[in-house]
Amino acid sequence: MSSSDGMNYAPKGKPNPVIREGESFAIAVAATDHGHINGQVQGLIEAGATLKYTYCANHPERAKDMAAEHGATHVTDLQTILDDPEVQLVAAAAIPNERAPLGIRCMDAGKHYFTDKTPLVSLAQLDDVKAAVARTGKKYMVYFSERLHVECAMHATDLIADGAIGKVVHVAGFGPHRMGDPTSRPDWFYKHAQYGGILCDIGSHQIEQFLTYAGCKDATVSSARVANYAHPSYPELEDFGDATLVGDNGATFYFRVDWFTPGGLRTWGDGRTFIVGTQGTIELRKYLDVTTDNGADQLILVNGEGEQRMSLHGEVGFRFFGQLIRDCIDGTENAMTQAHALKAAELCVKAQIAAEKLVTTG
Amino acid sequence: MSSSDGMNYAPKGKPNPVIREGESFAIAVAATDHGHINGQVQGLIEAGATLKYTYCANHPERAKDMAAEHGATHVTDLQTILDDPEVQLVAAAAIPNERAPLGIRCMDAGKHYFTDKTPLVSLAQLDDVKAAVARTGKKYMVYFSERLHVECAMHATDLIADGAIGKVVHVAGFGPHRMGDPTSRPDWFYKHAQYGGILCDIGSHQIEQFLTYAGCKDATVSSARVANYAHPSYPELEDFGDATLVGDNGATFYFRVDWFTPGGLRTWGDGRTFIVGTQGTIELRKYLDVTTDNGADQLILVNGEGEQRMSLHGEVGFRFFGQLIRDCIDGTENAMTQAHALKAAELCVKAQIAAEKLVTTG
Repeated sequence: MSSSDGMNYAPKGKPNPVIREGESFAIAVAATDHGHINGQVQGLIEAGATLKYTYCANHPERAKDMAAEHGATHVTDLQTILDDPEVQLVAAAAIPNERAPLGIRCMDAGKHYFTDKTPLVSLAQLDDVKAAVARTGKKYMVYFSERLHVECAMHATDLIADGAIGKVVHVAGFGPHRMGDPTSRPDWFYKHAQYGGILCDIGSHQIEQFLTYAGCKDATVSSARVANYAHPSYPELEDFGDATLVGDNGATFYFRVDWFTPGGLRTWGDGRTFIVGTQGTIELRKYLDVTTDNGADQLILVNGEGEQRMSLHGEVGFRFFGQLIRDCIDGTENAMTQAHALKAAELCVKAQIAAEKLVTTG
Repeated sequence: MSSSDGMNYAPKGKPNPVIREGESFAIAVAATDHGHINGQVQGLIEAGATLKYTYCANHPERAKDMAAEHGATHVTDLQTILDDPEVQLVAAAAIPNERAPLGIRCMDAGKHYFTDKTPLVSLAQLDDVKAAVARTGKKYMVYFSERLHVECAMHATDLIADGAIGKVVHVAGFGPHRMGDPTSRPDWFYKHAQYGGILCDIGSHQIEQFLTYAGCKDATVSSARVANYAHPSYPELEDFGDATLVGDNGATFYFRVDWFTPGGLRTWGDGRTFIVGTQGTIELRKYLDVTTDNGADQLILVNGEGEQRMSLHGEVGFRFFGQLIRDCIDGTENAMTQAHALKAAELCVKAQIAAEKLVTTG
């Protein structure tokens, strides 16, 4: 795994299979356009899933490599996957604006769907997905990796539930990303209609975290902004975005996303989360503790008891994947509710729609 | 000095007198309602000023103690100060809504005025102050201590000017403060008309930093919010506020201020500033590096060269005070321009006026 490139971020978790005697859980991959597919598949396999097929319309070579790595079959026609009754879930990291149509096709074929974030790019797609969920009874689940696949972020979820900082009143999230060599990015990375805008794309992680940490079922976008500060040769790129939201319980949220990770940072982005409760605060330094050798997954808890640091890399694991598999098998919603996943999707699209496009000088 | 209480934050700088042979710079204190007056006076004395008088209408005992400490004369009538032609500058930390009237009275008596932040609490007061500046030719300067009296914050000013992170596109500031025992606070702390609102009061520090770091002459408030999340017995208190601004050069700003510093934090607040430039980032951990013994004034610079930490406590000093004295003597504006100080004042009032008052549940 390369930590210099968030596109291919795929942490290794503790294998913790959830498949019981006499059960099986076969999955297939239907799109490998974004490198997140590696993390999606790895998490599911560690939890006991069996990768049966891989497919990608745009990048068959990647799908072929993934099949070889996991002893799966590479197919050149999606229909093969959809027609196999043994496949229970289809994972995909398609081009963002193709994620919803692909998912709906899978769901209509009787498969659960597990997409890379952002799960969709328009309110029309949201309506289509909601209709598909109602029609098929299948899940449209989302790989919000910046919480689900980050150990300190998962532990924060538990600490808050345990009351370690009282009632959460505010969350702030910073999601800087590395652009890297602009020519290494695919065409769709620069086409607004395809990637959906920066708030919709990498902003979707952030909003999901707010809903989780603040315990909101709904929220309103208070303000949002996007800009292209430094990439004039890519006019449809937004290299900066931020937004403020207020939850249905009055909790407040701010997040910033950007493509300005400096060249000298040792990882793809210094992802941070700051949570303010009535009785304490939590800070997450997700991917590194900059200028130190403390390692990733630093959680800093301050409350009435004092200042406490937890170094959580390798300590927490990634329970989401096993819970998702069990949810598919058992018809439960322990990994994440459908309502929560689609609320995060709705709000990132609404933030994008609401965003003021800043005019910059110099 | 106690570091557990931001109200009395008064860092000791390197004495660096700027008064030349044959010059003198006599100052007086006209209000000690806020503990910041200690930092204001200390900074000026270290730079060579002589404290001649102290006075406080509401707290004569504090003024008397300060006089004893610095060999000054405690007076029971402000007019004594205003009538003494030797006094060149009057420093004061009055109740916020009394700062502008007091300052104007001093300026009309021919004195420069150096007030604690927030410098004023309404646009009407701003107009009055501008008129006084034009009428008297005297300075209405402001103790924006969270930059001017913080070594890492002053060094960031220089690093940015030197181009260490390219063009600044975004600044975020967190200004949490400790409430402490609510009964230890004066009455005016809980009266909105007197303290001016949280964005106007402790938010003024934040906006001044944005204007400085992003190099803006003006800015617009995009959004603002205030709340009373956890102090229902003080209905006029705002224990949370945040706002977004956009500068006249397109740079963006977010800041949060609150009264939720946890009881177990060793200082009064974990003040942070995050600056994103086109070529790098700067993070400031101003008053502590939480859970570590690294000391205050940590500056983390990341750019194309790599990750770099600077531990700056005792290394930078506080040049503002000496520059302010020289500005008063020489008629220059090197410490801070009048336009900058009053623009920060204007914007914090405008943020306060624009703020949505959140209704919170539970």
